[in-house]
Amino acid sequence: MTKQRGDLISYRPDIKLLDATIRDGGLVNDFNFSDEFVRALYQTNIKAGIEYMEFGYKASKELFKREDFGKWKFCDEEDIRAIVGENDSRLKISVMADVGRCDFRKDIIPKSESVIDTIRIATYTHQMPGALEMIEYCHDLGYETTVNIMAISASREDDIEKALELVCSSSVDVIYIVDSYGSLYPEQLRKLTDQYCTAAEAAGKKVGVHMHNNQQLAFGNTIEAIAHGASYVDATMSGMGRGAGNCFMEQMLSFLKNPNYSIMPALKFVEKYIPEERAKGSVWGYDVPYMLTGALNRHPRAAISFIKENKTDYCGLYQDMLYEIS
Amino acid sequence: MTKQRGDLISYRPDIKLLDATIRDGGLVNDFNFSDEFVRALYQTNIKAGIEYMEFGYKASKELFKREDFGKWKFCDEEDIRAIVGENDSRLKISVMADVGRCDFRKDIIPKSESVIDTIRIATYTHQMPGALEMIEYCHDLGYETTVNIMAISASREDDIEKALELVCSSSVDVIYIVDSYGSLYPEQLRKLTDQYCTAAEAAGKKVGVHMHNNQQLAFGNTIEAIAHGASYVDATMSGMGRGAGNCFMEQMLSFLKNPNYSIMPALKFVEKYIPEERAKGSVWGYDVPYMLTGALNRHPRAAISFIKENKTDYCGLYQDMLYEIS
Repeated sequence: MTKQRGDLISYRPDIKLLDATIRDGGLVNDFNFSDEFVRALYQTNIKAGIEYMEFGYKASKELFKREDFGKWKFCDEEDIRAIVGENDSRLKISVMADVGRCDFRKDIIPKSESVIDTIRIATYTHQMPGALEMIEYCHDLGYETTVNIMAISASREDDIEKALELVCSSSVDVIYIVDSYGSLYPEQLRKLTDQYCTAAEAAGKKVGVHMHNNQQLAFGNTIEAIAHGASYVDATMSGMGRGAGNCFMEQMLSFLKNPNYSIMPALKFVEKYIPEERAKGSVWGYDVPYMLTGALNRHPRAAISFIKENKTDYCGLYQDMLYEIS
Repeated sequence: MTKQRGDLISYRPDIKLLDATIRDGGLVNDFNFSDEFVRALYQTNIKAGIEYMEFGYKASKELFKREDFGKWKFCDEEDIRAIVGENDSRLKISVMADVGRCDFRKDIIPKSESVIDTIRIATYTHQMPGALEMIEYCHDLGYETTVNIMAISASREDDIEKALELVCSSSVDVIYIVDSYGSLYPEQLRKLTDQYCTAAEAAGKKVGVHMHNNQQLAFGNTIEAIAHGASYVDATMSGMGRGAGNCFMEQMLSFLKNPNYSIMPALKFVEKYIPEERAKGSVWGYDVPYMLTGALNRHPRAAISFIKENKTDYCGLYQDMLYEIS
């Protein structure tokens, strides 16, 4: 086990915050955010000193219909520019692209023509060759790249080890530990962070962390991961994100001691926009069904439909999952 | 740092769960629970295999008026017996008594005449002589005793060390780490657990843990503390408790692998009674104001009144606290 890095009083300049509200939160409302919401969030992130803002996905327009989703599922260059202009700020702009669900050769233009700084490539361990192809393609176009290896709580250690080996010999800049199911415990995060950091540092790369809140561990796991060497942190305003949601950005800003950060703009955003978003019908956050899928190390889909259907028979849900009925 | 105890697959028979729903939850509704709620909870705890149920406080009837509170603030013998009879079960019954706010010589009768098994003595570090007097008094009456040293996130390490020394030379059975302000982080919990366990084990005592959820760390901190040696765990149904509430009992039952435990009765209880309790107007659980008091290591009172008054000016609250106005 590596030693703890940093402490509760000083700060580590290598730690960077990435606001994923539009991207992970978009999974809750089909990316139907108002321009006002996105613009206010962009201004908030700049004022709060946050380093990255993710605008959404670069999803394939062949696989997904434009009319079924808000524009942030596709993140066209002109839509981002309508919010940020030339992005004359220190905030970097990222988008996510899923292996197998984007047309990266068509939709990702050279960095020199784009206001996007960073392409984040989301992959399962069984898609690594596709991920590596996208990493090199985006890197060659001039982008910073990250690889977000998803659902590792359901992957075999051998496969994680091999995936790490592959991405460490790629051009990727940051390798993310992703707890898609909100299933990992702090002791597992410490082990994984050690494993990822050992591999990444030998290859001159950084490690990031993206947690889900199914077991109310998104914040706890995130701060454990950074204390053990991770330096890129995904968070969203009030945890907005799929199912139980993510690590809360306002909590990260209250926790981290970097004087470049300011919690006040985030508190103002949360006060105004989060109740409005919930009033629109967007539902996310810890609830019993998500706790059960997290504890059982399952995709949250059964919990999401259970909640959407306003069901409350928790025992029934648990039994169904135990015996693989749902 | 001591080594981790236990793992995620086996179980430790030394771990005991204490349901504190009525006692800490009573701080939310002035102990106005229906008999049906308390009886259902008692039956639930027995069926779930939980080891302890706390019925409330033994509060002074000189200091507190009977008519201002439900009966569980006082826990008269006949009120407990009306629920449990002779308590013909493996579930042990506890009550809490605050140093300086109870008439223990009058209100605590000999164990041989009582259905109560355990007296939990709540104290601040500056009240240790009073706590020690109560420990010995209750011990001599035949009770198992615990000492719950509160608000240690705001205590000096020297004072905690001295308090531990004193309770370790007393007759107390269990010493609780109590994060009253929901302010401690996992790395602090590990250190405190090591410190408490080292002292307690040398004196043949056990260590317990009672966490608050201001920073969504109640569950995370609890499982870190047990992984580092604590064995008595306080939790409440859906976290019902003062302010941001406590560690969720249904989460502990989903996490612990002891085959004596069963999560189903707890899920049934939570499904039926928690929405009813919230519909009565009981408010608890993580919210921005509690996160701020937790992060600033303050008593939650400013957050509790902020929420009671339906305020949402988070920045104002934060500023007031930073400059000690509230």
